[in-house]
Amino acid sequence: MRVLLTGSAGFVGSHLTERLLEDGHSVIGVDNYLSGQQRNTELFLGHPAFRFVQADVSLGLPNISESLDWVLHFASPASPPHYQQHQVETLMVGAQGTQNALELARSHGAAFMLASTSEVYGDPHVHPQPESYWGHVNPNGLRSCYDEAKRYAEAITFAYHRTHGLDTRIIRIFNTYGPRMRPDDGRVVTNLVHQALKGQPLTIYGDGSQTRSFQYVSDLVEGVVRLMTAKAGDDLHGPVNLGNPDEYSILEFATVIRELLGEHLKVEFRALPQDDPMQRRPDISRAKSLLGWEPRVPLRTGLARMISDLQPAARFAAQGQNHSVSAGAD
Amino acid sequence: MRVLLTGSAGFVGSHLTERLLEDGHSVIGVDNYLSGQQRNTELFLGHPAFRFVQADVSLGLPNISESLDWVLHFASPASPPHYQQHQVETLMVGAQGTQNALELARSHGAAFMLASTSEVYGDPHVHPQPESYWGHVNPNGLRSCYDEAKRYAEAITFAYHRTHGLDTRIIRIFNTYGPRMRPDDGRVVTNLVHQALKGQPLTIYGDGSQTRSFQYVSDLVEGVVRLMTAKAGDDLHGPVNLGNPDEYSILEFATVIRELLGEHLKVEFRALPQDDPMQRRPDISRAKSLLGWEPRVPLRTGLARMISDLQPAARFAAQGQNHSVSAGAD
Repeated sequence: MRVLLTGSAGFVGSHLTERLLEDGHSVIGVDNYLSGQQRNTELFLGHPAFRFVQADVSLGLPNISESLDWVLHFASPASPPHYQQHQVETLMVGAQGTQNALELARSHGAAFMLASTSEVYGDPHVHPQPESYWGHVNPNGLRSCYDEAKRYAEAITFAYHRTHGLDTRIIRIFNTYGPRMRPDDGRVVTNLVHQALKGQPLTIYGDGSQTRSFQYVSDLVEGVVRLMTAKAGDDLHGPVNLGNPDEYSILEFATVIRELLGEHLKVEFRALPQDDPMQRRPDISRAKSLLGWEPRVPLRTGLARMISDLQPAARFAAQGQNHSVSAGAD
Repeated sequence: MRVLLTGSAGFVGSHLTERLLEDGHSVIGVDNYLSGQQRNTELFLGHPAFRFVQADVSLGLPNISESLDWVLHFASPASPPHYQQHQVETLMVGAQGTQNALELARSHGAAFMLASTSEVYGDPHVHPQPESYWGHVNPNGLRSCYDEAKRYAEAITFAYHRTHGLDTRIIRIFNTYGPRMRPDDGRVVTNLVHQALKGQPLTIYGDGSQTRSFQYVSDLVEGVVRLMTAKAGDDLHGPVNLGNPDEYSILEFATVIRELLGEHLKVEFRALPQDDPMQRRPDISRAKSLLGWEPRVPLRTGLARMISDLQPAARFAAQGQNHSVSAGAD
């Protein structure tokens, strides 16, 4: 298969590229590096089945002469600090970006997949969230540039399916972690891991009893590949949650990280900020029955892999900044 | 003031144009006639302070050389049969259309108003709906092309306000009726009025006890003008409901129409369709306190005006189609 992937230089995009190439497919990666990282492109530049197009999908794509089997639209800032810094660009990649990617799929007779998000559920009143839950989103709030952009992206994906008969799929990605996340991602896993690698105290907001669900990135990628290769059927067009329903308290995260990186690491408690993300937890019944999918990587394993990937660079960075890196860091 | 109004040939757009011209302002009307009507442009073509640009705001506007004080973005299909027939265009006028209008306002140093809708509340769980209610919208349903487009339009309007400091206003328009509605609008008021004018039985779905709130178009226009001329303040940027909170049952509508057009008109009951619009009713406290606004035109008065405007044409049309027009039609 030949696959065009927008957002190929992002955290998830880079893992998806890697997997598709491993599976023997050709990948055309597209990114504008607004939040993607050039080194995620460089990983694959030597691969004969990979080529990269630097372009902003919101402004339109250059002519793609190859035939395409799939267009995967994964481009978007995804962490709160990034999308709040780029509100208009985030809105555009949900609207114009999605439409340009849909039109590309349509003109090439390709199937289309949208990477949507658990943020379409907003601050949910239903736990865990099944795909049939309509969500609880503030259309004017600080997160609306991301939440409403993704809801719009789902709506236009459905409109192309209904109007043009395009073969479309939608995944709703819940919190995901793993190697190649940006250090400034701003969410709890990267924050704690990077603090630990620098030997800094682990910051916990509130009393740490609030819970989070995180899936390891290879589980997400497995779900994407299964949805791409699932036998066509009407049931495939509705959104599919991909996330890990196992909940951990922030204190449990910190405990695992200390076990992996050194029990001496201190924990620092700070006041809970007002915009602390609300709890979300996926109901994955649909992915289970449709794709036979469920997450396989436990938190401890995933964190160990992420840390081992980060360690040399992080140590180097830490040493450049200060000399407090602990001897117990592995 | 010089005002650019997208959707000027629509039902609401034409009444707003009329009012702004009456108040001594200049109006540049823009429409692509997707759901607007050419005759609504022709009404004003002779007016020295009116000029018309036929353009699709979703695809971009031609250069506007005049200075502008306001950009009012009212373009969009608004009735369910129209937007469901034009799903992608409806999504585009909410995204690209709104952004093009915002950019026009920004480049001209003009203020911006978005015509949003009570449909952002979806199938609400809160009655009546205050602006602070986040709504209950299906992001993938048949109405999502309109609902999500308008929620996105609100989000990008806020993003331009936050990012570029643009002076923005948002109104949420609830069901509105009056002269110049399209006969094929598809909602209960036009359906019943046109049936009555043709001497046909009035169709009531279900038992007619379900209620609707309808505001007369001049009330809406008064609210728009008040919001445009309100003294600047942070409080003006949040959405403002404009609608009539008085509820009438469908049977009451039919009764008023029969009183106005002839008691002989029969009423025909049919099964309630599955997608019968849900009940929505505005909480107008904010418009009251912010603008001193409330609706003034009672249902009977509004319906009488609408009927008197429609009668010659409708009678003629009815006579062309059949000869069953009742002598009691006024």
